[in-house]
Amino acid sequence: MSAPISSNYGSQVFGAWRADCAHAWHAYTHHAFVEGLRDGSLAHSAYLHYLIQDYVFLMHYSRTWALAVVKSQTRDEMRLSASIVNGLINHEIQLHIGVCAREGVCEDQLFAAEEELENLAYTRYVMDSGLAGDFLDMMAALSPCVFGYGEIGARLKLTGVKNNRYQEWIDTYADPEYQTLCEQAAKLIETAAADRIGTDSTLSPRWSSLCKRFSTATRLERGFWDMGLRARCNDAE
Amino acid sequence: MSAPISSNYGSQVFGAWRADCAHAWHAYTHHAFVEGLRDGSLAHSAYLHYLIQDYVFLMHYSRTWALAVVKSQTRDEMRLSASIVNGLINHEIQLHIGVCAREGVCEDQLFAAEEELENLAYTRYVMDSGLAGDFLDMMAALSPCVFGYGEIGARLKLTGVKNNRYQEWIDTYADPEYQTLCEQAAKLIETAAADRIGTDSTLSPRWSSLCKRFSTATRLERGFWDMGLRARCNDAE
Amino acid sequence: MSAPISSNYGSQVFGAWRADCAHAWHAYTHHAFVEGLRDGSLAHSAYLHYLIQDYVFLMHYSRTWALAVVKSQTRDEMRLSASIVNGLINHEIQLHIGVCAREGVCEDQLFAAEEELENLAYTRYVMDSGLAGDFLDMMAALSPCVFGYGEIGARLKLTGVKNNRYQEWIDTYADPEYQTLCEQAAKLIETAAADRIGTDSTLSPRWSSLCKRFSTATRLERGFWDMGLRARCNDAE
Amino acid sequence: MSAPISSNYGSQVFGAWRADCAHAWHAYTHHAFVEGLRDGSLAHSAYLHYLIQDYVFLMHYSRTWALAVVKSQTRDEMRLSASIVNGLINHEIQLHIGVCAREGVCEDQLFAAEEELENLAYTRYVMDSGLAGDFLDMMAALSPCVFGYGEIGARLKLTGVKNNRYQEWIDTYADPEYQTLCEQAAKLIETAAADRIGTDSTLSPRWSSLCKRFSTATRLERGFWDMGLRARCNDAE
Repeated sequence: MSAPISSNYGSQVFGAWRADCAHAWHAYTHHAFVEGLRDGSLAHSAYLHYLIQDYVFLMHYSRTWALAVVKSQTRDEMRLSASIVNGLINHEIQLHIGVCAREGVCEDQLFAAEEELENLAYTRYVMDSGLAGDFLDMMAALSPCVFGYGEIGARLKLTGVKNNRYQEWIDTYADPEYQTLCEQAAKLIETAAADRIGTDSTLSPRWSSLCKRFSTATRLERGFWDMGLRARCNDAE
Repeated sequence: MSAPISSNYGSQVFGAWRADCAHAWHAYTHHAFVEGLRDGSLAHSAYLHYLIQDYVFLMHYSRTWALAVVKSQTRDEMRLSASIVNGLINHEIQLHIGVCAREGVCEDQLFAAEEELENLAYTRYVMDSGLAGDFLDMMAALSPCVFGYGEIGARLKLTGVKNNRYQEWIDTYADPEYQTLCEQAAKLIETAAADRIGTDSTLSPRWSSLCKRFSTATRLERGFWDMGLRARCNDAE
Repeated sequence: MSAPISSNYGSQVFGAWRADCAHAWHAYTHHAFVEGLRDGSLAHSAYLHYLIQDYVFLMHYSRTWALAVVKSQTRDEMRLSASIVNGLINHEIQLHIGVCAREGVCEDQLFAAEEELENLAYTRYVMDSGLAGDFLDMMAALSPCVFGYGEIGARLKLTGVKNNRYQEWIDTYADPEYQTLCEQAAKLIETAAADRIGTDSTLSPRWSSLCKRFSTATRLERGFWDMGLRARCNDAE
Repeated sequence: MSAPISSNYGSQVFGAWRADCAHAWHAYTHHAFVEGLRDGSLAHSAYLHYLIQDYVFLMHYSRTWALAVVKSQTRDEMRLSASIVNGLINHEIQLHIGVCAREGVCEDQLFAAEEELENLAYTRYVMDSGLAGDFLDMMAALSPCVFGYGEIGARLKLTGVKNNRYQEWIDTYADPEYQTLCEQAAKLIETAAADRIGTDSTLSPRWSSLCKRFSTATRLERGFWDMGLRARCNDAE
């Protein structure tokens, strides 16, 4: 049963980043919010709060992948990043709007939602990683989101309570389409790392700095679940 | 016959920018290179040189539209910009590679081409307009390329020597698909301007600065044709 | 006694932004942490935690002012922003290191401190405001820090318990040198606004978006004090 | 006498970049414009044109060093970059205004000057190097300006016609103050490279890409002298 959990999607670099902050990674991928999705025990108000914030997240997350296009140095980097930007904005966000609509939340409510601290912190940290560093720095900051959701989806598909109320969420990330995206991103990161820090990644003088970006982003992802559990739909000013 | 020439694609803002630098606009849209495309008299070496540089241009031009996604403030701004990024990278550039291949130039040659001064100047100026300013500043710098090619394509379709060797180029930009893109961009700019400087655009304190961005970009587009005519395939270092 | 509290340092734009989110502004400038500085009741561990995080803050805050230089459109914008960058990096941070050293915390500890969520959120939000918007958007996001500290310093100087253990902190921001910096920044913002949205600022279509940036940044500043009160020197991973 | 010419100011990385494009480097540092400064034969109109464009250059060049502050990863990178930004904006540009005033050109004329193609191309290329890459990519693009002027100043001081009309220009860059700045920048680059690509720089997978940035920037610097010789004070639109 542990296979999907320990998969690195084919990227040794991602695997090494994850191993470097194993404790934080576990806190993120086995968060109480995640376990609540797995067994269906998550309060529906928390789920709704998460869905609304996730819409705002997707808007800014798309912007970070657009910055990755700006920072691409090869055709493959440009192509995959551009596909992801377009896929997020013109496909995923639309699907998300549909999911929310079925939960009774319309798009204008989504767009008007006040972005919570933890939500804001993550995407802006990724954005600044791109402004401060290069494409690989961005990948280190984006990885916890991409692979973490893939890993959670795969694990919950295998171990979750079947047909619980959050099955649709689980299926989205366990889906072969999402898992394939993870593999493509893994390949992109392997090549991006080889092109910048060589194939013995951990020997690069940048290694500890890249690990720090990954672990900070992992910590911020955990914060996103914390926020979900708070279930406040309206921040007090 | 003058209809396509004087069209503003539905954007009064673009129309006013163009009128503000009418002389530079004419120098760009009626450049000797353009006239050579119109009547088929353009030296083939110049055309080839242009095609090769245009590949490099498209790579960086795509990056500027990606920065426009980063700078988007509304869903419509994000959606259209993301579509353009993806369309350029995963469609137009591929078509361009095909055109070049039929001319005997393979993609590795394209990718290895030394970017000429005038080519580099334009895309980096647009990029810096985005870094220095807001979404509307970028639009002012991007407009001469978008609408100028639309205007040239439409005019050459009407007035050009039929079936000359550059008919494919003319058809690309005269095509309803490209003309529709111009109309979408025009609408985007109208809204982007209304959201930032109001509907009486020319009364905004930013107006002269926006006109300057547009005219500088127009001057740089003219330079691109100058470069085409030089027909050097290899810069002397 | 209320004069310094209601001062807008000569900027009607700042005054209007503050009035627009009066409740959030009060929550920030009259936070329990601030009141603890005022009467000397703040736990010393909280103060130390704040000092350490403030070092990390100053590093990234300096970077945001550097981005303001990149985004400057006038000589005055460049000159003041450049002075602030240099003053922060080559003067303020050095002073801060001295303050921390007297509290027994050396610079390597400061540099190694893990940046807390609320700390990270504020500076990266400001940075992204610059990437997404123009110079004025940045000013809206930077204002709560600049003027809030000035207002707090002035108020605590007048109303605080004399010679309490936090007198040095109070004096730093009540100092004429800091108050003069606030006046210079106020003047800069007035001109920056006039140059971009005109003198009837509140009538600009950008007004509500600028107010939102100011109020979000104000909310994040309040979060910074919340963080101070938590007084965790080491985040659990 | 050749010592200053072959000096690498203590940076092996700079030395290797220069060696990699020796031909382009010579074309830049021994350009006809430079030789005209050396023996006093440069047309005064060309010098004036250069001075005016150099003012516009300094404004944007300062902005690029500000972006270097944004991209700094260490305290030393921040400190030196911030000093350079402030030195350029609040000192060098003021001196430059004085030089121009003595030549009869007032600051408003300087500020209103139309930026020429070659001028614009260089600074925007540097800026985009920062947006696309990391701090080291920026250093590769900034190096030809920093060290080239140092090398030219040192050579002209030794070999130039004494007390020719351009002695002041020569003295500025031959001056120990400027030569010391070159040494500081060299040290910064050595450390920045060691931190990112290791001490065997030429073995890094990034090496060819960094060499390309340096050689492109060198080519653009040569273009700046070409522009100087054109001596057009007003671009025809």
